[in-house]
Amino acid sequence: MPRREDDETAGESIGRILALSDGVFAIALTLLILDIAVPATTNGALGKALLDLWPRYLAYALSFLVIARFWMVHHQMYRLIVRDNATLVWLNFLLLIFIAFLPFPTAVLGAHRGSAAAAVLYATAVWLTSASSAAYLWYASGRGNLLRPDAGRAQIRAMRARSVSGPVLFALSVPVAAFAPYVAYAVWVIAFPLARMSFVWFFAEEPQQPGSVPSP
Amino acid sequence: MPRREDDETAGESIGRILALSDGVFAIALTLLILDIAVPATTNGALGKALLDLWPRYLAYALSFLVIARFWMVHHQMYRLIVRDNATLVWLNFLLLIFIAFLPFPTAVLGAHRGSAAAAVLYATAVWLTSASSAAYLWYASGRGNLLRPDAGRAQIRAMRARSVSGPVLFALSVPVAAFAPYVAYAVWVIAFPLARMSFVWFFAEEPQQPGSVPSP
Amino acid sequence: MPRREDDETAGESIGRILALSDGVFAIALTLLILDIAVPATTNGALGKALLDLWPRYLAYALSFLVIARFWMVHHQMYRLIVRDNATLVWLNFLLLIFIAFLPFPTAVLGAHRGSAAAAVLYATAVWLTSASSAAYLWYASGRGNLLRPDAGRAQIRAMRARSVSGPVLFALSVPVAAFAPYVAYAVWVIAFPLARMSFVWFFAEEPQQPGSVPSP
Amino acid sequence: MPRREDDETAGESIGRILALSDGVFAIALTLLILDIAVPATTNGALGKALLDLWPRYLAYALSFLVIARFWMVHHQMYRLIVRDNATLVWLNFLLLIFIAFLPFPTAVLGAHRGSAAAAVLYATAVWLTSASSAAYLWYASGRGNLLRPDAGRAQIRAMRARSVSGPVLFALSVPVAAFAPYVAYAVWVIAFPLARMSFVWFFAEEPQQPGSVPSP
Repeated sequence: MPRREDDETAGESIGRILALSDGVFAIALTLLILDIAVPATTNGALGKALLDLWPRYLAYALSFLVIARFWMVHHQMYRLIVRDNATLVWLNFLLLIFIAFLPFPTAVLGAHRGSAAAAVLYATAVWLTSASSAAYLWYASGRGNLLRPDAGRAQIRAMRARSVSGPVLFALSVPVAAFAPYVAYAVWVIAFPLARMSFVWFFAEEPQQPGSVPSP
Repeated sequence: MPRREDDETAGESIGRILALSDGVFAIALTLLILDIAVPATTNGALGKALLDLWPRYLAYALSFLVIARFWMVHHQMYRLIVRDNATLVWLNFLLLIFIAFLPFPTAVLGAHRGSAAAAVLYATAVWLTSASSAAYLWYASGRGNLLRPDAGRAQIRAMRARSVSGPVLFALSVPVAAFAPYVAYAVWVIAFPLARMSFVWFFAEEPQQPGSVPSP
Repeated sequence: MPRREDDETAGESIGRILALSDGVFAIALTLLILDIAVPATTNGALGKALLDLWPRYLAYALSFLVIARFWMVHHQMYRLIVRDNATLVWLNFLLLIFIAFLPFPTAVLGAHRGSAAAAVLYATAVWLTSASSAAYLWYASGRGNLLRPDAGRAQIRAMRARSVSGPVLFALSVPVAAFAPYVAYAVWVIAFPLARMSFVWFFAEEPQQPGSVPSP
Repeated sequence: MPRREDDETAGESIGRILALSDGVFAIALTLLILDIAVPATTNGALGKALLDLWPRYLAYALSFLVIARFWMVHHQMYRLIVRDNATLVWLNFLLLIFIAFLPFPTAVLGAHRGSAAAAVLYATAVWLTSASSAAYLWYASGRGNLLRPDAGRAQIRAMRARSVSGPVLFALSVPVAAFAPYVAYAVWVIAFPLARMSFVWFFAEEPQQPGSVPSP
C-alpha cells in the first residue's frame, strides 16, 4: 500500500515537471516569431521588403525544427522515465535554460546572415542544448536508475548512442561556422533528415516491444 | 494486460502532444496583442490616436478567431484520435509552425492596411495553415489509421470534406488579395459565420452518435 | 456503459478547454511586465528613473489583480460545469479575446497617467471582459444547462447575481473615467476588496453544501 | 461517498491552480531571453558585440535559476498540500505577481551593470518573492491546515525553517547592493550552491519517510 502511494506521488511529480517543460518548449517555439519585425516601409515597397526577410523565415523554420526535435527526445525519454529525483530536476532545468535561450541566437542568425560570429553563436548554443539533453538521458538511464523496469536494454543502448550524435554534429559545426557560415547552415538543414531517417530505420526493427518509442 | 499498458502509454503520449499544442495555440493567441503598440503621443491627442488604431484591432480580432478555429478543429480531431505515431507528431509540428507564424502576417496586416502584399502574405499564411490542418486529418483518418474504432464513418467523411473548405477558401483569396485587398478582408470575415453555420447544420443531424463532436 | 463513455469524453473535452484557457490567462498575466521598459539612462540617474515608473507598477498590479479575478470566476464556474457544447466554447473564446487584449489598455494606462482616453479605454475593456464573463455564466447555468445536477440553486442564483456586479461597476466607471480619471482609478482599486468581502460573507453562510465553491 | 467527491473536487481545483502557476513560471522563465536584444552592428563587429553582452547572459542565467528555485519550492509544497481555500489561492497569486515581475529587474540588472539602483531593485524584488513564498508555506502548514494528514512533523518544521533563509538572505543583500553592487552579485551566485547543499544534507537524513520530498 505505501508502495502504490509512492508511485502515485512520483507520477504527479513527473506530471508537473512535464507541464513546466512543455510550457517552456511551447513558449520558446512561439517566441521565435517575435524576431521577425514588421518592415517599416511604404505599402508600395512592402512586397519586396517582405521577400527580403527570407533569412529570418529560414532562421525561424530551422530553430522551430531544432526545438521540436529536442521536445521529441524529451517526450521519448519520459516514456521510459517513471521516477524523478533532485538531480533529474536540475538536469531538466539545465536543458530548459538552453531551450529558452535559443530564440536569441536565432534572432542573431536571422539579422546577421553570413556572419561567422552569428553562426558560431548558433552552433554553440545548439551544441550546449544537445549536450545537456544527452547528459539527461545518460543520467536517467545510468546512475539515476529512473527508467521503468521493463525498458528494453537494446532500446536504451540505442537511445544513448543516438543521443551523442547531436552534440558531436554541432560541436563539429562550430569551427565550420567560424570559417564558412553558409556551409554550416547546409549542415544543420541536412542533419535533420539524416537523423530522422536513421531513427525510422532503427525502430523499424523492433516495433512490438512494450514500452517502445514509436513516435519521434 | 500488455494491451492495456500500451493503451495507457498511448494516452500519456497524446496527452503531451496536446499539452504542447495547447501551449502553442494559447501563446499565439496572446502574442497577437503585442502587435498593437502604445501610441507615442500627448495625453490630449491620445483619444484620436487610439481610434486610429482600428485596423490593428480588426487584425487582432480576425487572427484571434482564425487561430481559435484551428484550435477547435484540432480539439475536434483529438476526440477521435486515440493513437499517435511519428508521422502524426511531425504533422502536428507542421501545423504548429504555421500557427506560431500567424502573429507576423497579422502584424503586417494591421500596420499596412490596404496593401496587396500584406493581404497576400496573410492569405498565404492562413492557406498553408489550413492545408496542414487538413493533411493532418486526412492522414489520421486514412493511412495513419489512428482513430477510435467506433468513430462513425459518415462523421469522418463529413470532417474530411469540411477540412478542404478552409484551404480552398484561402487559396482562392490569394489572387483576390493581390488585386483587391479590401474584398479579401470581407471574404475572410464572412467566411467564419458561413463555415460555422454549415457546421451546426451538419451536427444537428446526428446528435446522439457516441463519440460525436458537438462542440466546435 | 455508453453513458459513461460520453461522460469521459465530456471530461476530456472540458480538460482541453481549461488547458487552453489557463494558458491564455497565464500568458496575459505574464505579458503585463513587458509594458515596463528598462529606462534608457545613466547609472547615476537610474534610481530616480525607476521610481518615476510608479504609474506603470500600479497599472501592472491592477491588471494582474483584474485578470486574476477573472481566472477565479472561471475556475469557480468550472467546479459546476460538467458538460460543454459549441456555444460554451465560443463564449469561452469571447472571454479569452478580451482577456488577451487587457495587456494593451494596461500599457496605455501606464504610459498615459491622468489621460481620460486611457482611462476610458481601460474601463471599456474591463467592462466588455466582465460582461462576457457574466454572459458565460448565465448561459451555462441557464439555457445551456451544463451544470452538475447537484449544484445548489441558491448558490447558482447568488453566482448569477454577483456576476452582474462587475459589468455594472465598470460600465459606470466609463463616464467617470472620461471626466475624472483619478477618481476612476480609485474606484477600480477599491472595488476589489469590496467584492472580495461580499464574496467571503456569502460563502460563510453555506459552507457545507456539496459542490460549494470555497476558494475564490 | 460525499467525502470522496469532495476530495476529487479538491484535486481538480488544485490541478487548475498548478496549471496556471506552471504556465506563469514557464513564461517568466522564457521571457527572460527577450531582455537580450540583437546587437545593431555590422557583421564584422558582431563577435565583439556578442561578447560584450556578458552581463546580460549572467543576468539571464541568474534569474533563470532564481525562478527555477521558486518553482522547486512550489512543487515541493504541493506534494504536501491536498486542499485549497480562498486564502491559499490569493497567496498563490501574490507569489505569481512577483514571479511575473522578475523579468523586469533582470532586464534592468543586465542593462545597468554596476548600478546600485539596479542591484537594490533586484534584491528587493527577489526578497518580496521569497517572503511571499515563505508566507505561503507557513499559511498552508499552519492556520490553513491544508497539508496531507500523514505529512511528517519534522519535515514540515524543516521546510518552514528553510523557507525563512531566502527572505533573510535577500533582505540582507539590499543594503549590500546599495553600497557594493558587485559584492551583492557574488552573494546571490554563491547563495544557491549553499542552499542546495544544506537541502541535500537535510534529506539525506530521512530518505524513507512517506510523502518525503526528495526532488528539489
